[in-house]
Formats: sequence, C-alpha cells, structure tokens
Amino acid sequence: MTKLWGGRFTKRPEQWIDEFGASISFDQHLVEEDIEGSLAHVSMLEKCKILSSEEANQIKAGLQTLLQKAKNKELMFSAQYEDIHLNLEKLLIDEIGPVGGKLHTGRSRNDQVATDMHLYLKKHVQQIIQLTKHLQHVLVEKADQHVETIFPGYTHLQRAQPVSFAHHLLAYVSMFKRDTERFEESLKRIDISPLGAGALAGTTFPIDRYYSAELLGFADIYQNSMDAVSDRDFILEFLSNSSILMMHLSRFCEELILWSSQEFQFIEMDDTYATGSSIMPQKKNPDMAELIRGKTGRVYGHLFSLLTVLKGTPLTYNKDLQEDKEGMFDTVTTIEGCLTIFAGMIETMTVKTDVMESSTKKDFSNATELADYLASKGMPFRQAHEVVGKLVLECIQQGMYLMDLPLENYQAASDLFEEDIYHVLDPKTAVNRRNSAGGTGFDQVRQAILKVKEDLKQEVNA
Amino acid sequence: MTKLWGGRFTKRPEQWIDEFGASISFDQHLVEEDIEGSLAHVSMLEKCKILSSEEANQIKAGLQTLLQKAKNKELMFSAQYEDIHLNLEKLLIDEIGPVGGKLHTGRSRNDQVATDMHLYLKKHVQQIIQLTKHLQHVLVEKADQHVETIFPGYTHLQRAQPVSFAHHLLAYVSMFKRDTERFEESLKRIDISPLGAGALAGTTFPIDRYYSAELLGFADIYQNSMDAVSDRDFILEFLSNSSILMMHLSRFCEELILWSSQEFQFIEMDDTYATGSSIMPQKKNPDMAELIRGKTGRVYGHLFSLLTVLKGTPLTYNKDLQEDKEGMFDTVTTIEGCLTIFAGMIETMTVKTDVMESSTKKDFSNATELADYLASKGMPFRQAHEVVGKLVLECIQQGMYLMDLPLENYQAASDLFEEDIYHVLDPKTAVNRRNSAGGTGFDQVRQAILKVKEDLKQEVNA
Amino acid sequence: MTKLWGGRFTKRPEQWIDEFGASISFDQHLVEEDIEGSLAHVSMLEKCKILSSEEANQIKAGLQTLLQKAKNKELMFSAQYEDIHLNLEKLLIDEIGPVGGKLHTGRSRNDQVATDMHLYLKKHVQQIIQLTKHLQHVLVEKADQHVETIFPGYTHLQRAQPVSFAHHLLAYVSMFKRDTERFEESLKRIDISPLGAGALAGTTFPIDRYYSAELLGFADIYQNSMDAVSDRDFILEFLSNSSILMMHLSRFCEELILWSSQEFQFIEMDDTYATGSSIMPQKKNPDMAELIRGKTGRVYGHLFSLLTVLKGTPLTYNKDLQEDKEGMFDTVTTIEGCLTIFAGMIETMTVKTDVMESSTKKDFSNATELADYLASKGMPFRQAHEVVGKLVLECIQQGMYLMDLPLENYQAASDLFEEDIYHVLDPKTAVNRRNSAGGTGFDQVRQAILKVKEDLKQEVNA
Amino acid sequence: MTKLWGGRFTKRPEQWIDEFGASISFDQHLVEEDIEGSLAHVSMLEKCKILSSEEANQIKAGLQTLLQKAKNKELMFSAQYEDIHLNLEKLLIDEIGPVGGKLHTGRSRNDQVATDMHLYLKKHVQQIIQLTKHLQHVLVEKADQHVETIFPGYTHLQRAQPVSFAHHLLAYVSMFKRDTERFEESLKRIDISPLGAGALAGTTFPIDRYYSAELLGFADIYQNSMDAVSDRDFILEFLSNSSILMMHLSRFCEELILWSSQEFQFIEMDDTYATGSSIMPQKKNPDMAELIRGKTGRVYGHLFSLLTVLKGTPLTYNKDLQEDKEGMFDTVTTIEGCLTIFAGMIETMTVKTDVMESSTKKDFSNATELADYLASKGMPFRQAHEVVGKLVLECIQQGMYLMDLPLENYQAASDLFEEDIYHVLDPKTAVNRRNSAGGTGFDQVRQAILKVKEDLKQEVNA
Repeated sequence: MTKLWGGRFTKRPEQWIDEFGASISFDQHLVEEDIEGSLAHVSMLEKCKILSSEEANQIKAGLQTLLQKAKNKELMFSAQYEDIHLNLEKLLIDEIGPVGGKLHTGRSRNDQVATDMHLYLKKHVQQIIQLTKHLQHVLVEKADQHVETIFPGYTHLQRAQPVSFAHHLLAYVSMFKRDTERFEESLKRIDISPLGAGALAGTTFPIDRYYSAELLGFADIYQNSMDAVSDRDFILEFLSNSSILMMHLSRFCEELILWSSQEFQFIEMDDTYATGSSIMPQKKNPDMAELIRGKTGRVYGHLFSLLTVLKGTPLTYNKDLQEDKEGMFDTVTTIEGCLTIFAGMIETMTVKTDVMESSTKKDFSNATELADYLASKGMPFRQAHEVVGKLVLECIQQGMYLMDLPLENYQAASDLFEEDIYHVLDPKTAVNRRNSAGGTGFDQVRQAILKVKEDLKQEVNA
Repeated sequence: MTKLWGGRFTKRPEQWIDEFGASISFDQHLVEEDIEGSLAHVSMLEKCKILSSEEANQIKAGLQTLLQKAKNKELMFSAQYEDIHLNLEKLLIDEIGPVGGKLHTGRSRNDQVATDMHLYLKKHVQQIIQLTKHLQHVLVEKADQHVETIFPGYTHLQRAQPVSFAHHLLAYVSMFKRDTERFEESLKRIDISPLGAGALAGTTFPIDRYYSAELLGFADIYQNSMDAVSDRDFILEFLSNSSILMMHLSRFCEELILWSSQEFQFIEMDDTYATGSSIMPQKKNPDMAELIRGKTGRVYGHLFSLLTVLKGTPLTYNKDLQEDKEGMFDTVTTIEGCLTIFAGMIETMTVKTDVMESSTKKDFSNATELADYLASKGMPFRQAHEVVGKLVLECIQQGMYLMDLPLENYQAASDLFEEDIYHVLDPKTAVNRRNSAGGTGFDQVRQAILKVKEDLKQEVNA
Repeated sequence: MTKLWGGRFTKRPEQWIDEFGASISFDQHLVEEDIEGSLAHVSMLEKCKILSSEEANQIKAGLQTLLQKAKNKELMFSAQYEDIHLNLEKLLIDEIGPVGGKLHTGRSRNDQVATDMHLYLKKHVQQIIQLTKHLQHVLVEKADQHVETIFPGYTHLQRAQPVSFAHHLLAYVSMFKRDTERFEESLKRIDISPLGAGALAGTTFPIDRYYSAELLGFADIYQNSMDAVSDRDFILEFLSNSSILMMHLSRFCEELILWSSQEFQFIEMDDTYATGSSIMPQKKNPDMAELIRGKTGRVYGHLFSLLTVLKGTPLTYNKDLQEDKEGMFDTVTTIEGCLTIFAGMIETMTVKTDVMESSTKKDFSNATELADYLASKGMPFRQAHEVVGKLVLECIQQGMYLMDLPLENYQAASDLFEEDIYHVLDPKTAVNRRNSAGGTGFDQVRQAILKVKEDLKQEVNA
Repeated sequence: MTKLWGGRFTKRPEQWIDEFGASISFDQHLVEEDIEGSLAHVSMLEKCKILSSEEANQIKAGLQTLLQKAKNKELMFSAQYEDIHLNLEKLLIDEIGPVGGKLHTGRSRNDQVATDMHLYLKKHVQQIIQLTKHLQHVLVEKADQHVETIFPGYTHLQRAQPVSFAHHLLAYVSMFKRDTERFEESLKRIDISPLGAGALAGTTFPIDRYYSAELLGFADIYQNSMDAVSDRDFILEFLSNSSILMMHLSRFCEELILWSSQEFQFIEMDDTYATGSSIMPQKKNPDMAELIRGKTGRVYGHLFSLLTVLKGTPLTYNKDLQEDKEGMFDTVTTIEGCLTIFAGMIETMTVKTDVMESSTKKDFSNATELADYLASKGMPFRQAHEVVGKLVLECIQQGMYLMDLPLENYQAASDLFEEDIYHVLDPKTAVNRRNSAGGTGFDQVRQAILKVKEDLKQEVNA
C-alpha cells in the first residue's frame, strides 16, 4: 500500500527503515490533542466557507467517532503511516471515505504537530502548577506544627546556628513558589496557536487562525508562520523550569536521606516511601527520596538533549525536530510523579523533635551568639569573632561546650562578658532572637507561614 | 599574617592550597557591587542605631575611597584574603583602622556575596534586554527593505515554498522577542535583596532589610533567610535564558554561513566580520558567524555546570557554590559580545536580492500552489497532492520546471487545470497569495513590521 | 500478598508508589541475562558444595524453563515484584517450590543487577564494534570508486582547496576507526564479573567468583566488592564513546543534507532514505540524515543524565543507580539503528561526480597553488600569500577566475610567474600534487584505501 | 598596520571585533608548544631541502630566542595578530627579518594549532596519570594502616554491613586505577602528529611528516589530512575521562564531608584543607572537599560544551573549533589541582578509629550475619531473611540491639539458632568472615593491598 506522500517516489522504502523514522510509537500520546486540533480546524474551514457544512459535518462526525475510540483505547496505529497525523487521517478516510482527505486543506503536518504539542503542554503545565502549589501547602502545614522545634541549621554540612525547623521547611516553600512562578510565566509562550501556519509560509486559503485558536482555548496566535512551525522554545523553557524544580527536589531529597540515616535520625520515613533489602533484613531505605534525587539526571538530560538537537539547525522544520517529543513526555511523567510522591513523603514522615532539639545542645552552633553579644557591646565584629574562636578552642581542648564554661573563663577573654551570657547561649533563645525580617525568630516564622497560606488561598480562589 | 577567620586554627595553611580555594582571581569582578552593598549596609546600621553616625561616616568615607580606587584600577588584591569581601575588609581596615571591623555587624559573607551577584546580574540583564531589542530593531529595519524580496523558504534544507525575505527575518524577531520577555520576567527573581539574611538564620541585631534593599534599588527582599543565602535559581534562569538565546543565534549563524557559501551566495558579509586564511589567499570566511555558533557550546556548558553543582547539595551555603561565578561572568561577556557583533553583521551584510529571486525560479518550490489550486477547486487535498507529485516527477524526467510544462500535460493530469495556472506558479504570486494571518503575503509582512516597530517604540518610551 | 523483603515493615505500600519505584517496566530487557547469571551462580554454588546437586539441578531445570518461556515471550511480570530479579525469583518459586529461595544464597540484587548489565553491554558493544567496521567497509568501497573524483574541500564552509572525494570519505573512516578502538578498549572494563560481591562486602559463603565468571565468559572479576556494586563507569564510558560516535555521524549527516540541497546537488539520496511532504509534492527530504543528526542530542542527553545521577553519591549502592538503565538501553538501540541506516544511506546514494568536478572549476580554491608556486620559487610564503590575495581580488573585480587571467597580469604581479601556472591551476593537478603523507594526492589516497582494507580484513580474520 | 592575511580585504576591521574573534588571550598558553612545533617543522624543511641550511639556521636561532623569552615571560602579544601563531610569526620576522616568513612553507595554521594541542595535552595527560597513581599510592598507604579498622558499610546511606575501612578506601583505588587506564589508552590518540596536513589537503612541498613527528616525540602521524585538522576527539576523550574522574572525586568528597560532620565524626580534616567562617567562630568547614565536589560541574560543563560545538559542523576546520581550548586548559588546571589537593587531604586527615568501630556496635548492620547463619544451616535464604526481619523488629520495639537479645528469643524464632550466634554477631567477626574473593575479610584486604602496591611499583619501574 502506498504512503500518503508517495506520489513522487519510484521505489519502496524497506519496512524497518520506516520504523526507525516513524514517530507513531511515541506521538500516539498526542492522539486526543490531534483530534481536538482537527475538530477546531474543520469548524474553521466551515466558517470560512472553505468546506461546505455537509463536508464539515461528515468530517466532524468521523473525528468524534475516532475520539471516542481513542478514549476507549480502540484505535490501532501502524508505523506504516509514520506518525499520529497520518494514522488518524487514514483512519478517518477509512471511516468516512475520501471526503476525509479534505481535512488537511489549509494546514500542514508542521503546524499540526506544533498545535498538538502546545495543547498537550498547556494542559500538563497547568497540572504541574497545581502540584507545586499542593506541595507548598503540605510544607506549610508541616511547618505550622514545628515553629518552635529547634533544629541545627547547617552550612558546609557543619552545624552553624540553630534554627526553627519550620524555617528550614519554609526555605523550600520559597523555592517551589519560584518554580510555580516560572511555570506560570511560561504559559504565556505555550498558550499560543501555531495552527494555520501551514508548512512554513501560511496558506492561500482564506482561513481564520484566530477562530481556530479561540475554539482550542488558546490566548493568542503565533505572529509569524515560519517561527510557528520551527519554534521549540516552549518545550525548552518547560525542560529548563523542570530542571530547576528537580534540582530543588534533589537538595531536599539529599536532606531527607541524611536525616533518615542512623547518624542523624531526625526523621523516619513512612514505610510507604521506604523499602527493604533483599539481603539485609534490618534495612529501611529511603528509596523514594533517592529515586527522585536520581531522576534529576533524567530531566537535566532531556534539557541538554533538546538544546543539542536545536543547535545550529537552519529554518524552518527539520526532521531533527521529531526528537522533541520523548523527552517532553518523559519529563511530564517524571515531574508529575515526583511532585506527588514527594508531597506524600513529607506529609507522612515522622519528625523526631526530641533528637533535633537535643542535637542543638551538643555542639558549638551557639558560638555566633557570643560574637554578636560582644559586638552589640561595642567590640568590632572581627575582634569579637577572634575572641570567640579562642573560647571555642578552649572548650574543645577541655572536652566541654560553651554552656559549661565557667564565667571566669569568659571574663578572662573579655571583660564585656556578664552573667546573662548563659541565657544568650540557650539554643531556643538563639533562634528566637534572630528576629530580623526573614530570619528564624518565631515571630518571623509565624508571619511567614501566614503569608504563604494567604498567598496559596488567594491563588485557589483566583 | 593571620587569616581573618583564623582564631580557631592551630596550623598554617600552605599558600597554594589557599590559592586553589581562593576566589579573588574572579570575584574581583564584583568589586564595585561589593562596595555599593557595603555602603547601603552601613547606612542601614546607622539608621537602626547599631552603629553611631560617627562610626558610619568613617566607614562610608573609607568605602568611597576604595570605590574611587576600584574605578581607577588602583586596588591590589591578594589570594591570602580569599575573596573580594575579605580583601575589601582588609583594605578598609588599612584605610580607616579597627572601626572598619564594625562594618560586618549584622551580615555574613553568605548574604554579602549573594547581594553582590544580584546587583551584578540585574545590571547586566537590563543591558542584555537592551541589546536584544537593538537586534530586533536592526532586523526589522532590514526586513523593511526586503518585503518584496523573494527568497526560497526551506524545510529539511530543501526548497519548500518561496517566501518574502522579510518574513524570514521576522521569524527571528519573534524569537528574540521571546528572549527579551524571558529576561524581563527573570528580573522579578533577580531584583530582590538577600542582604541581612546573615549566615543563614537572620541576625539578632535590629536591622532593617527593607531599608538597605531600597538604598540598593531592589524591588523586594528575600522572605526566608536560608533561601536567601542558598538560592542560585536566578543564575540558572539567566544561564537557561542565555542558552535559548544562543540557540537562536546558532540557527541564524548557520544560515548566514550557508548563505555566504559559494553554493548559496545569498549574502556577502562585510569584511569587518569575515577573515582570511593564512594559507589560502582567496578565502573570505564568515568567522564571526562561526564563532558565535561555536560559543553556543560555551553557554550550554555553563548552564549544565551550575545545574550539576547544585544537584543534591543540602542547605544552606556550601563551598560548592563558589563555582557559580565564573560561568555567570563568562556568559554575560559572551552574550553581550555576541548580540553586539551579530547586530552589526546583519546591519552591514549585503543582501544579493537578484540571486535570491532567481533561485526561486529554478526549482519546484511552487508545487504547493498547484495542489492548493486543485484543492480550491474541490479536489480532496490528498488526491491533489498525489496528482502534483506525478507532475513534478514528469518535469524532472524531462529536465524542465513546472512553468515550462505545456497546458495539455496539466490537463492530462486533471481537467481542473486551466490557463491561469501559470500565473499561480509565479513565485511572487505564490508568496503574495499566502495572506493568512502570520503568513508571508506582502500585506501580512508589512503589518508585522509595523507591529514590531510599534512594540519596540513603546518599550523605549516606557 | 507480601513483598519479599516485607518482614520488617508494618504497613502496606500503596500500589502506585510501588509502580513509580519499580523498574520491571524497563529492566525486563535483562531477562535473559538475569537467567544466564543465575544459571552460572547456581552451578558455582553446587561446585562449592553450598547447594547439593539435587537442589542445584532442581533450580537449573526451573531456570531453563523460565529461559525458554522468556524467549517465547511467555513470562508475565508485575510491578508488585519491583524488578526483574524479584519477578524471576517469584516465578522460579512458583515453578519449583521453596527450594527456589536457595538461589539467592551468597549473592544480592546489587551484584546481580551489575552482572546483568555487564553481560548485556558486552554483547551489544561487540555488536556495535562490528557495525562500526561495517560502516568503514562501506565507506572504503565507496572511496575506491572515487579516487579521482575531484570535489571542493571546505574550511569555514568556503571552498578551500579541491580534494579527491575519496579523501573526504577516508577522513570519516579515520574517525570511525577511532570509535572502534575506543569501544574495543572499553571492553576491558565491561568484560568483568561483579557476581559474588554480595550487597557490598562479599559473602561468608565459600563461593568461587572466578568459576561463575568463567561460566559467564567474563575475562576477569572485580577486585573489590564495594566497587563491584557501585561502579557504573562502564556505562558512562559506553555513553561517552557513543556520544563521540554520534558527533561524527552528525557531522557527516550535516554534509549529506548540504550535498542533497538544490544549491549543492553533489549527491542524491536513495528514495529508501528520503521522504516526501504532506503538503509539498516536490519535496524529497533527506529525513534519515536529519533524524540521525537529531539523535545526537538524545545520546548526549543520556551521558549527561548518568553523569548527573552519579555526581556526589556516597558508596555503595543507592537507589539513584536505578536510573542507569533506560539511557543505556536507548543508546544501544539508537547507535545500532543509526549505524545500520547510515551505512545503507552511503551505500545507496548517487554521487554526482560531474556536479562535484564542475564546481571545482568555478571558484578560487586553486589559489593556494599560486602561493605555493611562488614559495617554491623562493618567495617567502607570507609575501606569496599577499601577492595571490591581490590577484584574486583583481579576478573578482573583473568577474573572472584565475584560469582566465592573462599571463601578463600574473607577471605584472610577480616576475616569478611563467607559462606553467595554467597547468598548476588545474584542479586535478592541484589535487594530485598534494602528495605529502596523508595528503589528497591520488597515490596517497590509493595507499590509504589499501591500508584500510588490509586492517579491516585482518580484524575479520583475527 | 595590515593583518597578515589582509591582502584580499578592502576595509579595516574595527578593533574590538578583532578582539572578540582573537584567541591570543588564551592560546598564549601554547606558546612553548608552538615554538617547539616550529623548530621541528623548520628542521624538516631543511632536511627535505625546501629551505636552505642557512635559512633554516636563521629561523631556528630566532625561534630559540623567542623560546627563551617565552620562558622568561618577556614576550608581548597583541590581539591585533589574532592568535599565538601569527603573533609568534610577527615576532620572528621582527627578530630575523623577512626570512621568517618562510617558516610557514608547507604548513597551515590548521595543522599548526592541532600540533600545539596534541603536544600540550600529551604532556598534561602524562602528568595527570602520575597524579592518579600518586593518589592510589596515598590511598593504599592509608588502607594499610586500617585493615582491621571496622567501619559501617553503607547502602542507601543506611548502615548495611560492617566493613574494613581499608576495604572502603580500596574501592576508590579501583576507580582511580580505571581512570589511569583510560588516560593511558587515550594517549594512543593524543600522541600522533597532525603537522604537515596543511590547511586540509596536504601540501605540494616534498615534506617528511614522519621526520617532524619523530623530532617532536610523536608515536605516529595522522593518516588523513582532512581528519588531522578537524579532529578534536582527543580533547573530547580527555574531557570525558576527566568527567569520570571528577565524578569519582565527587563521591569521595561527599563522603569526606559526611564523615567530617558532627553527626558522623569519623574523620577530622587537617586544618590546611578546612576553613572557618567569617561569622561563626566555631566552624571548621571541609572547604576543599566541597570545592572539589563543586568543580565536578565545571568539568562536566566543558565536556558538554565541546560536544555541542562539534555537533553538526561540516568538514574540515571551522572557526567554531576555536572554542576547543579554554575548556581544555581549565580542565587540565582543575584536574591537576584537584588530584593534588585530594591526595593531601587523605594523607593528612585524622581517622577516628574509635568512633568508627563503636558506631558498628550500635545498629543492626550485623543482621545479615543471622540470615547467612540460618541459610548455612539449610534454611532457604528468603525464609531466613523473613525470620531475621522479625527479630530486628522485635529488638527495635524493645529498644535493644541483636547482641542484647536473649538466646531464648532467637530460639523461639528458629530452632536452628545456637549459642555461637553471639560470636557471629560481633562486627569484627562479621567483617573477617566475608572472605570471598574481593570481599572485606582481612585476608582478602591484605592481599588486595599487596596487589595494588605491586602494580604501582611495576608501573614506576616500567
């Protein structure tokens, strides 16, 4: 049987080369979007009197039948017809006869596939935005329970200064909020119709691109037909935003893994998100956190892959662009899965507040308090830093912590020290006194929680 | 001489390890931003009565002296003081004595370096936005001269349908417009102050972060201190936006290189942007276009470098983050250079309109016209496509073009063909008839040019 | 029903989280390798008297049954059993009863999965080596037909100096030869058995790792059990070698696409490797060349993905490593497909020798001949270059080529010029005179062809 | 003043465009290699009687003068002469007059720059091989001191089974050994001369490429001139090998950072490799380990940068290739620095054997012993695993470890348990009993150490 574009050719392609070149194995993901696009296109052709109402109705009925079958997973596709577009056209003609061939009037596969991908990505980016908000919601609820849970804040994975555990969680809320913003802004460049751009140059038929765009729910149309068929920025932007999101998740996963270790013991994962070992019966591995951390590589890879594909290709459509889809589909699946799983992990994990708090008492993370103490009494900060450094060394050499050092030792180091330093050194005091805007003081944290909740509520109502 | 943070240490680091770890060799790029940040910080400390006016004035005077010296390239930095922050603090203390040590009250190097980078990137992203607009301006001016210049439009690097050369140029204007948008949106996340977030947790001093942010011209402050010191999203976003921009430039460069070849001969580069060969005297190489295409790799590399650095690092600051700067600096230099050079290349290149136009007459890129012709007379498009495919084959076998084929051959293929097909086949007619929205028809192109010019004008006035 | 490792857990994982974490959807590719590995393992356990012969025979019979079913695609796997290892163990126990549980004695999934991947990759890298040699063979045969086909050699996509078309093809033979070498060298690190390394530390059972390695045809065993289970270098090396190979193919594809264009017309692709357009009946697109060029991105992406996964993960096995497989499988499929298709494209393409040769006469790519001519008569090369540059300019201004310029003009430029320059300027002479080692002179090219053929023959015999 | 290749041009390039295109700012790194290459080239020209001995001697003397000045850092380069090659030629002509122009006979900048890079990389890869061996040496010495230091082996960052600390170190020795192998194998493709390949096609002069290769110490010459000037595989291979090496270092650094934390406390970094905080006096940050982990991103980035540059570029030389150098130089500096620093860190770190050993007693990492115990008494492993899982749960619920559980509880779970289980549960016994080849048993580890030492010794002698 002849290929639809086979008129010009004198020889039969061999089957497996066809299969290598065919995209139907993966672009069948777009089956519903492709039919939706065709429905809008045929309505437009009718409105513009390019097709008669009779023709249009026949085609629409056929497409509706196909859509129903698609939803019921009853359509059979074949690599012989290359891609989802030609497969559907073949099925349509089988269904309604030669009039089905009129559907392709005034469009090309180049604008058609771009339309499908815009429809697909718009739907999923909207879904992902909801998932990032849900994750923020889960985090802020968890934070709300832990405003006064004292926890070691780290720099360089060394305990630095004690913080509110809620404050730590809210740092991630800030990150996911930026992710949400970026996805939302990207919609502006996704929610735009290439339909009617033709192969590259527009069409001689008197079509109405704004009408088909409106039927499909697009906010605007591409202003340049050559750009419309060769632009893949919207996918790159999605992959880049997804990469940054995965990076955030990878950092958080790293922490969950550390906190689940025997050495930290700050949390315990719910069994649902952990697995055992086929050989070591005692193991409870934070598998989901590791897996999500690992999946960062996958998303980065897809971004780099598409950047490579597009580099240095001349206008307009080139077959290279067929490589734009699998990475997009896989990233959608990955991101949606990771966000859902991650939110569940946070929601169900047990926070061991006692371990966290007791750990803040067995280190020198309250040393900054002393330096600030001296500085607030007028000693230049650099000098205060030096004085405290020596006191820490003294403690280490004597095997004690700062709380244990007698007042006379303090006063030997500087006569600015007074009895009240022991209060200042208490981790809870230390946390609460960091009341600068955005700091870890309890009031700051409570305000931050309120603010996040309000923002999330407004967005839900909006 | 002791390091500023050396109090706790009992042994001297060896010099070259210091140098390996030091960032002064590259973070001295931030010298002016660092001093600006310190000036705002000290003003804030004074306003909040953390420093006396006398102290503040001494420090400000010292900083102004350093700023002046920095502008005159008179400051000497040393790897012994690791980074720009400690170098400047040392220079300040040398200049004004121990009171200089009070400058560091209520801040840390962690929020300080983040502040510097936000200041730096805000300035340069604004500059890059101007350069992307300038490039659009150059392109639209060039397009204005070539609305009716007929040029082969390509898909698969095969001539597909003739287009207006202006239309081709406007496709790139659309791309650079998206680049501009993305850079503008990213400013929202760059134009935000981390100053006062301290090491990670805020500070016990009664500072006013909004005041220092205002002095520095920032639109907002970071809402979470731990996020403020560990966030590098704003750089990733810059690198990602830059990668997409470079991808656009790489596609355009590829075309300029093709068009400059002996085989295409569509343009001639101005000598300023071309070079010769050390061995082949006849060569005129489109060096700048090749170099910009090559520099795409550099920017992609920086993006992946930072994505890798951040992957899986726990909160908050880790020394790994020191690796965030060189890629950012190099990308700024690269992007600013490439945009400037590229605009110049376009502005000065000679467009060989005659070669372009004559080339549209020696191929089959008008074949779609015939298919559309048949379809508009009621033949299903798929059948029309088949008919025309055979006519093309007939021409190839007889060594002629479609314009040369006698009417009887057409009518033998389909009785829908009439005398007017020869008009339809004329490339200029073909271009002009693609008058659908965003198509290559001259009216469409003229409207598009007007629209771009208006947008650019408004933005300049805004 | 309980998970095999579920003894320690008190709660039931929900099904879809299981599916997210399960690898069975893709690691079932390893079904045959996994059974082969188990067969060797059980034979070893028997030999070492860890299992009785009776037990071993039962297990072996069960495994053989499963192997047969696997080959007949009769095995049913389930995400409930996570991965191929636990699925097969479950199927084995179903087949032969509880004795099947003894198979896992003295090994862990960690060394088991590593064994599977080594077996898989060894087989495919050997296959890929054969395909790279086949491609070299196809190229050298094509070269053999075109030793005296003159063709423009390019630098900067500008015609530089005419070369033998065979010489150009042989440049790619050199590249693919290096690819072959790299794949061959990598085998040293693939052909090595991790089996018996256990979870990470070896085992207390008196196993014989050399024996199971021998049964599996491995050349050596891993010397350190912790390395054995956490090493993925062999996959990285494969992905890196594949990336370089794809880069070579992408360069060649770029050339095939250029050469197929209307502007170059140096070759015509066989219809099998080209496709048409759904809208433009005249199009013959070099689709396969574009697709292969595009697939470069995919392979680069997989490399970067795995580099990211591994970055910064502590020893030994982490769940992140599950992300090592899909990219490996996809790269194998991609590389094997691309090499096969590419060889077919080269074999079947039509070389338009007349177009190639005539094009060498209509440019200045013989200008170097003049400079060499003067230099060989004693003029410093730099001065000769300058003289010839001016002659080229003179020709361009007068619309002629160097062959057309009268002798007096030459002699006006330098009295070293004599009548024989016209012979020197002939492209064929120019090519043939470049007889330095590895140059394009016909003798050199013929020797190079012989050398390649001999190397390929020896390797086949070896 | 005119550019050396300026004969054909009618207009003056503006200076800053020159600077953008010039490579002298970084390719001056190659100054010595460039002069060495020229010295060999001129000797060859003399031997082949292309230059007279007098000319050759003049040029050699001039080059020697330049070489001396280069070593004394006395040469001044200018962007006006683009690159190191033209700068040196200009300086040579300034030094010895127009005869200097004869040096460029029979070569081009294309083969010249390739020669320089091969010389450069050969030298540095040899250096890096030595550094990887030195690191192995340091590790094996450290291992030698810790054969019987018991340490928790991890999977999923959960304690899995106790191992010898030496065994853990030797896992990295295996990795670095593979790195060494890869670098050594790559030399085969680096140690090869492109000199004399000319611009792309060889030369008409009767040169002897084998002679100049021999003078430069190259093992072979490129067999195809077009490949010689466009091949950058050798750099890609270097970057890929370096990326894998950095990945190994990043894993090890991650562990050093974990081990330095308050929570693990397994090691203490020497002060030389740690730094303090500008604000927190108690901090001792494992800065060098973090920095090296971060520098992984830099090297990955350079690899992807060059892969991108090369993708899809046609033969032969294109200006894009100028982008091959900075990443190579930076990777050399990074790798050499990281290897040196890393070896120093390992050498000087304090291993807290007591903390390591005591930690193996406070967890369930000896649970596998019980399962193996039961399996060795004939219980199918899967069943044994289930039994032990329940015992672990029992312990956790009662707040005890396996060593503390009374024998009757064991026997209640299975009557295979006897008194000797307490011996089996001792971590030291557990480690020592894993005596399978490559396992952590002390004998195995001692043998492995001997083997590594022997290999390293042989290589030094070879």
